Amino acid sequence: MTASTRRRRKPPPAKPRGRRPGSNDTRDEILAAARELFAEHGFERTTIRAVAGRAGVDPALVHHYFGTKDDLFDAAVEMPVDPHQVLADMPSDTTRLGPELVRRVLLLWDGTEMRERLRGMLGSALTHEGAAETLRAMLTRGLLPELRNLAVDDGRREWRAELVASQMAGLILARYVVKFSQFAEAEPEQIVAAVGPTITHYLTGRL
Amino acid sequence: MTASTRRRRKPPPAKPRGRRPGSNDTRDEILAAARELFAEHGFERTTIRAVAGRAGVDPALVHHYFGTKDDLFDAAVEMPVDPHQVLADMPSDTTRLGPELVRRVLLLWDGTEMRERLRGMLGSALTHEGAAETLRAMLTRGLLPELRNLAVDDGRREWRAELVASQMAGLILARYVVKFSQFAEAEPEQIVAAVGPTITHYLTGRL
Repeated sequence: MTASTRRRRKPPPAKPRGRRPGSNDTRDEILAAARELFAEHGFERTTIRAVAGRAGVDPALVHHYFGTKDDLFDAAVEMPVDPHQVLADMPSDTTRLGPELVRRVLLLWDGTEMRERLRGMLGSALTHEGAAETLRAMLTRGLLPELRNLAVDDGRREWRAELVASQMAGLILARYVVKFSQFAEAEPEQIVAAVGPTITHYLTGRL
Repeated sequence: MTASTRRRRKPPPAKPRGRRPGSNDTRDEILAAARELFAEHGFERTTIRAVAGRAGVDPALVHHYFGTKDDLFDAAVEMPVDPHQVLADMPSDTTRLGPELVRRVLLLWDGTEMRERLRGMLGSALTHEGAAETLRAMLTRGLLPELRNLAVDDGRREWRAELVASQMAGLILARYVVKFSQFAEAEPEQIVAAVGPTITHYLTGRL
């Protein structure tokens, strides 16, 4: 955004960074402001009002464009991948469930530029509490429910989903971030064979 | 350090930040320079010469105080805990090995201010390649050999140690960093019961 394209509205907002309502830029500025505030303060402590203030628009405009705070969050903090899609058509044979899950996660991380985005996200989460909460909200809303659906229905599906997520997160850390030598050099199927049964156990075994 | 306490040596170093050799400050400045450079460039690409340059001292002085680069690394990048100590006197009964390991890790993280230090370290590792390499060197030199010693000797002990480290890292991430609800609220023994068998399996089971 250049200063010359800015337009003041009346009454002027506290931070006169807004554009005329209705332009695509307004939408983008609201999203940018939302991303900043979610990263700084986390989901819970970020309000529509604060986002509007930073974007220099009226809160009603934020609601108009994005609906609720939940909707705004989903629009602003785009999941780099859609867990629902990644976890579609999983095998019904439970012993194949864990290995297949590991295989798909490795395929995703081995093959795309997504890795850098997820790394950055995880890095911020570790160093900024707001970002940690954003990551938590993203995983809790996007990933865990999908994992939960793969688990046996024994009243402990939330716990099972989190156990799976913990081993998956550790795998990603070991192979892509810290890059332990065995993990980094292993063929995907070697990791599938070693970690897959753990995932199956967490999803369907006796805890 | 204040400017008034700085002393130039002859010949003056490229960056005149040194003090007179022999003072405690010199030692601290070498350590500070080493920490900075290890974080920026990682273990491999950091040289004694570069550390000396940044500290404004002669490389020989760095060797005099700290010995080899490995020794300097150990002195500069202090492990927040001594894995050898944490993993001392483990039960010989292999089924108790995994649970006991999880128990000790939880005790360590639940109870100390160490958590923030380790979090910061992990956060930097995710956002700075140099820090990632430093963390890798620290874990590879300090933690993995200890875990390796707990594994059955079937020629795959390095792989077993890394598998254990991956699940432990994921557990720490889930409970203390991302704070998944079940993980964050669980009693330690609930986590011990769920994750312990996985650790035992990685250490002693058929992979």
